[in-house]
Amino acid sequence: MDLFDKLLANRGPLGSHSHYAHGYFTFPKLEGEIAPRMLFRGKPVLTWSLNNYLGLANHPQVRKVDAEAAAEWGMAYPMGARIMSGNSNLHEQLEAELADFVMKPDALLLNFGYQGVVSIIDALVSRHDVIVYDAESHACIIDGVRLHQGKRFVYTHNNMENLEKQLQRATRLASETGGAILVITEGVFGMSGNLGNLPAIIALKEKYKFRLFVDDAHGFGTQGKTGAGTGEHFGIQDGIDVYFSTFAKSMASIGAFVAGPEQVIEYLRYNMRSQIFAKSLPMPLVVGAIKRLELLRSKPELKDKLWEITNALQDGLREKGFNIGTTQSCVTPVILKGQIPDATQLTLDLRENYSIFCSIVVYPVVPKDVIMLRLIPTAAHTLEDVKETIEAFERISEKLDKGLYSKSALTV
Amino acid sequence: MDLFDKLLANRGPLGSHSHYAHGYFTFPKLEGEIAPRMLFRGKPVLTWSLNNYLGLANHPQVRKVDAEAAAEWGMAYPMGARIMSGNSNLHEQLEAELADFVMKPDALLLNFGYQGVVSIIDALVSRHDVIVYDAESHACIIDGVRLHQGKRFVYTHNNMENLEKQLQRATRLASETGGAILVITEGVFGMSGNLGNLPAIIALKEKYKFRLFVDDAHGFGTQGKTGAGTGEHFGIQDGIDVYFSTFAKSMASIGAFVAGPEQVIEYLRYNMRSQIFAKSLPMPLVVGAIKRLELLRSKPELKDKLWEITNALQDGLREKGFNIGTTQSCVTPVILKGQIPDATQLTLDLRENYSIFCSIVVYPVVPKDVIMLRLIPTAAHTLEDVKETIEAFERISEKLDKGLYSKSALTV
Repeated sequence: MDLFDKLLANRGPLGSHSHYAHGYFTFPKLEGEIAPRMLFRGKPVLTWSLNNYLGLANHPQVRKVDAEAAAEWGMAYPMGARIMSGNSNLHEQLEAELADFVMKPDALLLNFGYQGVVSIIDALVSRHDVIVYDAESHACIIDGVRLHQGKRFVYTHNNMENLEKQLQRATRLASETGGAILVITEGVFGMSGNLGNLPAIIALKEKYKFRLFVDDAHGFGTQGKTGAGTGEHFGIQDGIDVYFSTFAKSMASIGAFVAGPEQVIEYLRYNMRSQIFAKSLPMPLVVGAIKRLELLRSKPELKDKLWEITNALQDGLREKGFNIGTTQSCVTPVILKGQIPDATQLTLDLRENYSIFCSIVVYPVVPKDVIMLRLIPTAAHTLEDVKETIEAFERISEKLDKGLYSKSALTV
Repeated sequence: MDLFDKLLANRGPLGSHSHYAHGYFTFPKLEGEIAPRMLFRGKPVLTWSLNNYLGLANHPQVRKVDAEAAAEWGMAYPMGARIMSGNSNLHEQLEAELADFVMKPDALLLNFGYQGVVSIIDALVSRHDVIVYDAESHACIIDGVRLHQGKRFVYTHNNMENLEKQLQRATRLASETGGAILVITEGVFGMSGNLGNLPAIIALKEKYKFRLFVDDAHGFGTQGKTGAGTGEHFGIQDGIDVYFSTFAKSMASIGAFVAGPEQVIEYLRYNMRSQIFAKSLPMPLVVGAIKRLELLRSKPELKDKLWEITNALQDGLREKGFNIGTTQSCVTPVILKGQIPDATQLTLDLRENYSIFCSIVVYPVVPKDVIMLRLIPTAAHTLEDVKETIEAFERISEKLDKGLYSKSALTV
């Protein structure tokens, strides 16, 4: 059989829609400066789909430092993996500042978040160890778990009873293999906005022997008094053994870091395959991250503003009777009843007639009769933006309820 | 058992040396502009360890564009995955130019090379398919193969007889499972400098049904008449079904691309997990890559200069009786006989007394009694640099032969 024939016989859950979706529903282009108001196909839209939580992407100080750092260093420097030839004082400075900020003894800078998580998991466990992980974990966690040669048990999302059951199974197995247990959760789940139930997970350490790895991509900068993340929010940062965040959300960049005990970070520094065999994070991204972290620490008003917008949006939606699920974070899902064709028409209407751009999530990510609109509020949004959005949502929701989208045939 | 106790009981092949190696042999810092002459611990050294093949890292036009692009776009833009909100005209322009340059119908830009390769392999095969790959493949290929749920057969490095044997096994198995076969090799192997034997591999397509994926990280920009890589060098680019290169070497940046038939690239666009679930390549890296590609195409003198230096270095070393293995590319290994303590002393001597900085490879990457010094010539080096280096190598090689390093005790 030919590999390509086989591949093209099933173009995948997203690829099978590409003939009508490409460039509009998938691979859309948002143009202009990163802001709540951008251009989509030449027309201004109010965007709720960028993880620019603190509005740092276009902060004048960030833009200034990004430009200066690129002028000073170029995008090539340093070359090679950190361990070979790609290390610098600034990489180490950023690591020290990140460790300090998230209240961990040490931190390791990662060249990209996705491969970072995959490779952390890969480095932490070997074949006799057992992984226990949340069922709604991000794709990068799943891929890390897929690399694991030993056993893994998945627990029902945030279900502590089920987690305990899986920990019992894992404990029995680990005692047979002579292995250890790694539990993995997210701090903030990016689809539902649920917080990982860290206090309950950590409380289980009293009964079961395991280490906890938390991917806090959406929590870093948005959760906790200082923005140090979901562990700080719950006051249990010490119970997180290995803490991870990407720079792709609050930090509005690329790259990532992992923080934890000194010896464990040292271990990861020397054993993470995606770090020792791949190029170091370029200097402008390192210098830019130092500036972003400084603003994140020194400007609590950004996080306050983010939460003002978040609360106005979520309270407003709830008041109008919208189902926003169980979110405990800034991630704001709006759950509507409808089929995929309805979702297509609704999105077109929302973008073309109400000038609102947000992400639409349909089957198979959510059940067949659910349309989820996912809103990411940021510190750059205004209360006026919130008002306009809720009003538009009322209109489209009415049309959906009346079945108008099933009858309409808007086209791209 | 505690996961951390277990982890720290074996600190890994590199980590177990960190107590004396850190900051000198591992995680060294090369300071100053990227060039053959940089500073190591405050002292000038002649460096042969950066994959800056064409000298683009510090080319004035590259530096100018890097600075301008960062000033224009900042490092945050665009935000989100390509498929969600991170697409742009410039990303598409770069893809079109890359496809054109490597003579393939289409190309997909990747946010990082390492995870790109892992994820390409993951997307191309499913559990019934069979992977056949070269034993000396880079870590990212190995990790991609590790994700594969079906069977894989490894063939002895560049051994076509063994490849054929593995293809026979793979063919039998694939006919049982109803799967297809993917063969994976590198264009240029980064340690030995060997070229993947692409003509012989492709000739096997006459007898066996398979698709060929080539990771040409070290070949792109350095091999072939126009620099389009190892396939062009052999005149068999058409026989490569899926072509990959990183931007981390000749292109002196980060990011990567994959090129191939339109429908296959479309499939990858919609199904590569590290692309659809992770942030798009930031704009300054895209704009910077467009400029680098333009220089790579329009300035053949850079590649000519690279090969002038390469030939002078390799011929010079051979003339002096050095064993440079079987390299057919710019990668220049120098193979010496000695134990790890000799390697340590030799490296110290080379760096401190001869001011030459190159990578040292020891057991377990090479056999126990081998010390491999690995030199990467670039277009930025001079013939004077080559002369100085060969002379230094003669001196250290004499000392090694006389057993002086076994008796010396230089310390960092």
